[in-house]
Amino acid sequence: MTTLTTGVVGALLAALPADRVLLDDDVLASYRHDEAEWAPAGRPLAVVRPREAREVQAVVRACLEHRVPLVTRGAGTGLSGGANAVDGCVVVSTEAMREIRVIDPVERYAVVQPGVVNDDLRAACAAQGLWYPPDPASAPWSTIGGNVATNAGGLCCVKYGVTRDYVLELEVVTGTGELVRLGRRTAKGVVGYDLVGLMVGSEGTLGVVTEVTVRLRPARPAERTVVGYFASVVDAGRAVEAIGAAGIVPSALELVDRHCLAAVDAWKNMGLSVDADVVLLGRTDAPGEAGDAEAGGMLACFETAGATWAAASTDAEEAEALFSARRLAYPAVERLGPVLTEDVCVPKAAVPEMLARIEAVAQRNDVLIANIAHAGDGNLHPLLITPPGDDAARERAQVAFTEIMADAVDLGGTVTGEHGVGLLKRSGLALEQSAAVVAMQRAVKAALDPLGILNPGKVLPDETGASA
Amino acid sequence: MTTLTTGVVGALLAALPADRVLLDDDVLASYRHDEAEWAPAGRPLAVVRPREAREVQAVVRACLEHRVPLVTRGAGTGLSGGANAVDGCVVVSTEAMREIRVIDPVERYAVVQPGVVNDDLRAACAAQGLWYPPDPASAPWSTIGGNVATNAGGLCCVKYGVTRDYVLELEVVTGTGELVRLGRRTAKGVVGYDLVGLMVGSEGTLGVVTEVTVRLRPARPAERTVVGYFASVVDAGRAVEAIGAAGIVPSALELVDRHCLAAVDAWKNMGLSVDADVVLLGRTDAPGEAGDAEAGGMLACFETAGATWAAASTDAEEAEALFSARRLAYPAVERLGPVLTEDVCVPKAAVPEMLARIEAVAQRNDVLIANIAHAGDGNLHPLLITPPGDDAARERAQVAFTEIMADAVDLGGTVTGEHGVGLLKRSGLALEQSAAVVAMQRAVKAALDPLGILNPGKVLPDETGASA
Repeated sequence: MTTLTTGVVGALLAALPADRVLLDDDVLASYRHDEAEWAPAGRPLAVVRPREAREVQAVVRACLEHRVPLVTRGAGTGLSGGANAVDGCVVVSTEAMREIRVIDPVERYAVVQPGVVNDDLRAACAAQGLWYPPDPASAPWSTIGGNVATNAGGLCCVKYGVTRDYVLELEVVTGTGELVRLGRRTAKGVVGYDLVGLMVGSEGTLGVVTEVTVRLRPARPAERTVVGYFASVVDAGRAVEAIGAAGIVPSALELVDRHCLAAVDAWKNMGLSVDADVVLLGRTDAPGEAGDAEAGGMLACFETAGATWAAASTDAEEAEALFSARRLAYPAVERLGPVLTEDVCVPKAAVPEMLARIEAVAQRNDVLIANIAHAGDGNLHPLLITPPGDDAARERAQVAFTEIMADAVDLGGTVTGEHGVGLLKRSGLALEQSAAVVAMQRAVKAALDPLGILNPGKVLPDETGASA
Repeated sequence: MTTLTTGVVGALLAALPADRVLLDDDVLASYRHDEAEWAPAGRPLAVVRPREAREVQAVVRACLEHRVPLVTRGAGTGLSGGANAVDGCVVVSTEAMREIRVIDPVERYAVVQPGVVNDDLRAACAAQGLWYPPDPASAPWSTIGGNVATNAGGLCCVKYGVTRDYVLELEVVTGTGELVRLGRRTAKGVVGYDLVGLMVGSEGTLGVVTEVTVRLRPARPAERTVVGYFASVVDAGRAVEAIGAAGIVPSALELVDRHCLAAVDAWKNMGLSVDADVVLLGRTDAPGEAGDAEAGGMLACFETAGATWAAASTDAEEAEALFSARRLAYPAVERLGPVLTEDVCVPKAAVPEMLARIEAVAQRNDVLIANIAHAGDGNLHPLLITPPGDDAARERAQVAFTEIMADAVDLGGTVTGEHGVGLLKRSGLALEQSAAVVAMQRAVKAALDPLGILNPGKVLPDETGASA
């Protein structure tokens, strides 16, 4: 301890109230990882839990002074290793920054600290007849700051867009230690470059967010649910395409494949996998008769595409039970062993082809791959499942993971639809983007983080022929 | 000519087919200005009308080699001087890049060259049951490339957002002369920094856009129109607030003040100004009975707020006539003399206060100021009207212009909601943003345009104490 306290740790202890700085080995260990399987994680020197922007600024300035890497962390629910610690870094956890500061029903925005949990914000908004749409599956645990860092999506994106579409203003500590406000709270504004949009999705590599102003919508009507069972992914893909061609924009359109259905059945005995190879779950939140028409339209698309069974749910409880199978898919699959989660996004019309390629990847590499997908967006989450403790299977899964990224790019898609690049997809970024585009990103990074202390080694691929 | 042809002009003539390069003095003069009154404009060395991305790249490379400024220009309908020529620059006009390359009804996107006119794209989409929402008042003339450069808004923004919300992918020639593709065509994607969002609204200072992929929506139901006449802007402001509080999101909510009404009457004899001090025009595109309910809701809000007359229009023709008063306001006002167009955006609840302050600015500076406003967004367009040839009035108008920006910032607003900074609002940018934020913008500019050739002197304020 005495050696450390002369360095950045000493600076942190001097600048902050004592309870903000955590140095215990066991505690430090618990802040090393997010939920990405097998992404490398280093050992932090210290974990800091600031309460206010000025405290964050003090941490950044201490790190700048001592040239120490800084890794910002929300709830640690990330799936790409973006919040994993770097050796010798300071981890800034936003967990003590949970204040909802403003909910303005007239201007329709909310101002929150970054550690506010997504579902908590949504509940507070709902109490005032308002709605914050972005709904990643991690919403019960993940934070708005983490959602901003990864530009999180969710089920409602197909109609309502992603986190970036809702962030109006950010308070940020910059890579030079300044505390700044970016963006604006008005409905429109075009002064200067879109630094807010640049920060959103930058995974902690361009600044540390200390306050977020998000746009809200009025509460929406209750959703209607339409369910379809299909004998093949090709039939399900046809249904998705037909819904688009009919001019219907569902408020959710989710796909669950037979491996997930079997895993859910094995856990909860819902009997789903007996009846279907693939399930599609559609929702509409259009009001009144328009909602009836959209639900009927989706049902017709399911039937025309060859659904073995399809129905529009008439009561909320039944619909909720059906959607719970979607939500249970991930934990159900996790019961089978460590899961590596993919996140490719392809053109909607390429979803059946992409699912066929994923099946081929699974067979070629002898890896069990289950699929859940935001089918309406073409955003697929192949879940690569390995038996516990089987190192050879892990290696095969990592090969499969890389092959799936290559297939997505080949089909005109992207290697990550909503989870972020973090550590796991840096090679995928280099696959998807030209060297000139990667160079532009490096130039932006160097411009805004000139000393390279902010979450180094994440997002951008290693430079070849030069030190990172 | 002989001296010029040894420099950048010679390089252009060598690299491009002869008809792409315009050198005639009268022609060059016609490319000096956009529609911003009184913004300074330089003299270009040459105007180039490329047809393909590779030709644009050749121009950028010639300018890089000869360290010559390059100004990109769409239709020249800008209102901030962003496309004004710089002395000794090359103007790249996108007018010969008018190809609509793809309209994909399944993936719902369109791929266009930057010189495609907004209304032409909208018409081509409509023919396939699709809709490109951004609808600036300049839509009959302005280009998608220009809309991208300024992040153009319009009437539908209050419900459907601005240009940036629709741009998926850009092909760009960078400040280092590379031809790159930024973004993606999939519905979602989070690989690396949002360079597309950064380019949108950057007013030609970070790259030259050579192709744009925009997201489309399905065609929407016909709109219903609700009109309210009010005796004061305060009453009209109350109506706007009530609509928000009722959870109604109109598809347009426009305000026209008595000066505009009088100007329209003087031109078209519509008799509007006799009946109202302020007119609000609301629209809803909600389908079926939901649309009836929203129209009824808006009507009730108008009446509760004290409308002297209000009605929901039952037929499309009548509604169109009412909206034509909104569209005629700007040309009607222009008949009175040179107009300096403001573009401030304030919190919705501050609209009455802002209108009162604009009235005070008008009286204090003896300037006639008419107002049209996207009231639902808080985006006001005070129109500062001067008698033809009255230099003293011009000077007073410029003082008033600056005071209005200061009032908007004071009320928590922004100096430009949708027109851009260009030349006219650089001091406004410095007023609105902290020095640290301006420094971030300069760092981004230097990172992506290291030689400073792209539209120099626009957007960012002059550096104090250092050479620009």
